[in-house]
Amino acid sequence: MIGIDWGTTSFRAFRLDAAGAVQAQRAAPRGILAIEGGQFEEELLRQVGDWIAEGEDHILMSGMIGSRQGWQEAPYVACPAGAADLAASLVAVPCTGATVRLVPGLSHRDAGGTPEVMRGEETQIVGVLDDAAGAAIACLPGSHSKWARIEGGRIAGFETYFSGEAFAALRGHTILGRLMRDGPADPAAFDRGLARAGEGGHLLHHLFGVRTLGLFGRLAEEAAPSYLSGLLIGHEVRAALPPGGAAVHLIGARTLCDLYARAIAAAGSQATVHGEDAAARGLARLGKDASWT
Amino acid sequence: MIGIDWGTTSFRAFRLDAAGAVQAQRAAPRGILAIEGGQFEEELLRQVGDWIAEGEDHILMSGMIGSRQGWQEAPYVACPAGAADLAASLVAVPCTGATVRLVPGLSHRDAGGTPEVMRGEETQIVGVLDDAAGAAIACLPGSHSKWARIEGGRIAGFETYFSGEAFAALRGHTILGRLMRDGPADPAAFDRGLARAGEGGHLLHHLFGVRTLGLFGRLAEEAAPSYLSGLLIGHEVRAALPPGGAAVHLIGARTLCDLYARAIAAAGSQATVHGEDAAARGLARLGKDASWT
Repeated sequence: MIGIDWGTTSFRAFRLDAAGAVQAQRAAPRGILAIEGGQFEEELLRQVGDWIAEGEDHILMSGMIGSRQGWQEAPYVACPAGAADLAASLVAVPCTGATVRLVPGLSHRDAGGTPEVMRGEETQIVGVLDDAAGAAIACLPGSHSKWARIEGGRIAGFETYFSGEAFAALRGHTILGRLMRDGPADPAAFDRGLARAGEGGHLLHHLFGVRTLGLFGRLAEEAAPSYLSGLLIGHEVRAALPPGGAAVHLIGARTLCDLYARAIAAAGSQATVHGEDAAARGLARLGKDASWT
Repeated sequence: MIGIDWGTTSFRAFRLDAAGAVQAQRAAPRGILAIEGGQFEEELLRQVGDWIAEGEDHILMSGMIGSRQGWQEAPYVACPAGAADLAASLVAVPCTGATVRLVPGLSHRDAGGTPEVMRGEETQIVGVLDDAAGAAIACLPGSHSKWARIEGGRIAGFETYFSGEAFAALRGHTILGRLMRDGPADPAAFDRGLARAGEGGHLLHHLFGVRTLGLFGRLAEEAAPSYLSGLLIGHEVRAALPPGGAAVHLIGARTLCDLYARAIAAAGSQATVHGEDAAARGLARLGKDASWT
């Protein structure tokens, strides 16, 4: 089968064998925002038409392609949900010459009743379920980081943190950014930001400290971006980790996952970093569980 | 005497009688950023030269005019500090035809050792000290809100919160803003944001809820700015109020102070709103305590 992780800004395709191993893979900057006039079928054929022609006619897609802005909407499945629940809720999309299914996203309500959604991340989490026996946490850092509780092989619930996008806005559009200069990542400054987050005190107060440390010559302009990153990630990790800590499975780009692993260690827990192939593993697992009728 | 509150973006002058009452006042959008080539003396004469000519030749100035970017730097005085400490640390500025003094700003270190500074706000706080007997809190909301502890008639220490500028950056430069439309202030949405802040949970998580509430049709585009404002102010107030609550003296623009008073009441404390004349009262008090040699 072919597994596709089709997000807002990128398209990734995996050719999978019967055991779920990746035989070939392709990526293109052809996220759904780049596709004009709803020509998703045409784009799919452009990207993997040769694989289909070779007989690989079962295609499973996850990500924003199943959103209202995508090819067709695949309604959210409510947590708790595991691989079997997702596989039972695949949505068929008409496509010439291939059997195409969409993986639905997941929805949840947090303790206060505010809705939560994910689309694409559920498939990546499914890709690490075999490594997350018993109770564990999956964290997918990014603009909108997802923290999911895994219980008994299912996703029990999740929370989203706005840290990545908040960093960009604070760095680019506040007085804090004016005291910063781009430079190489500075692990010591990142650790100082983490330590500050661990002191207690509110993020809104700690943010102003980025400015005063700079004004008092205690934070160099090149170090300030790493400090701010450590501050935000440190706050996120300490808020998202359950009391008493947890085994965390990090999924995503290596550099960012390594920063989160550092923050999780500073907060007293342990993290395992999974590569970006979690999506392929998740798609293979869901494809195996699915009934392709 | 003449009291002047000369900040980054605005200039306000008060003609004060011997009892400290305001006889006349003037304001102009002539903050220090608008003054080119360091021509502060010329600007001062342009604004209040007629008062000086009439014999009002003692001038006391507070605000960013005493910063490195202002007329002359007036070094910070460390907390705890009261009116007498500030009055004893005025800095003389040479000026033809008038005796001019600068009020120094205040510095402090928070529990984690990170520096804090204020410049201008200390004079406004001095203006409400007579109303803040015993232990109280002064809060000056704004881009960088100040929360000062008043103990025994002195400013014991203070903390700054980045809420105002964070609001602007989140509203203007993140995906949250794309689900918002400008509209009249919406007190019900503001209260919902306050309630959300009171639920517990981290601000970085609550921010993403602004998006999901919008996506699920539970927060109208016109209501979203007020909700975000309530969320940020609610977080700030709950973090800054001491455990057990406190009597809070709010100083600043009426509309913003009213929002903070609402947030403080929702958190179980009581606030008194002081008008913007706190600066004039503080300048009068410091002028009385000063030795104009």
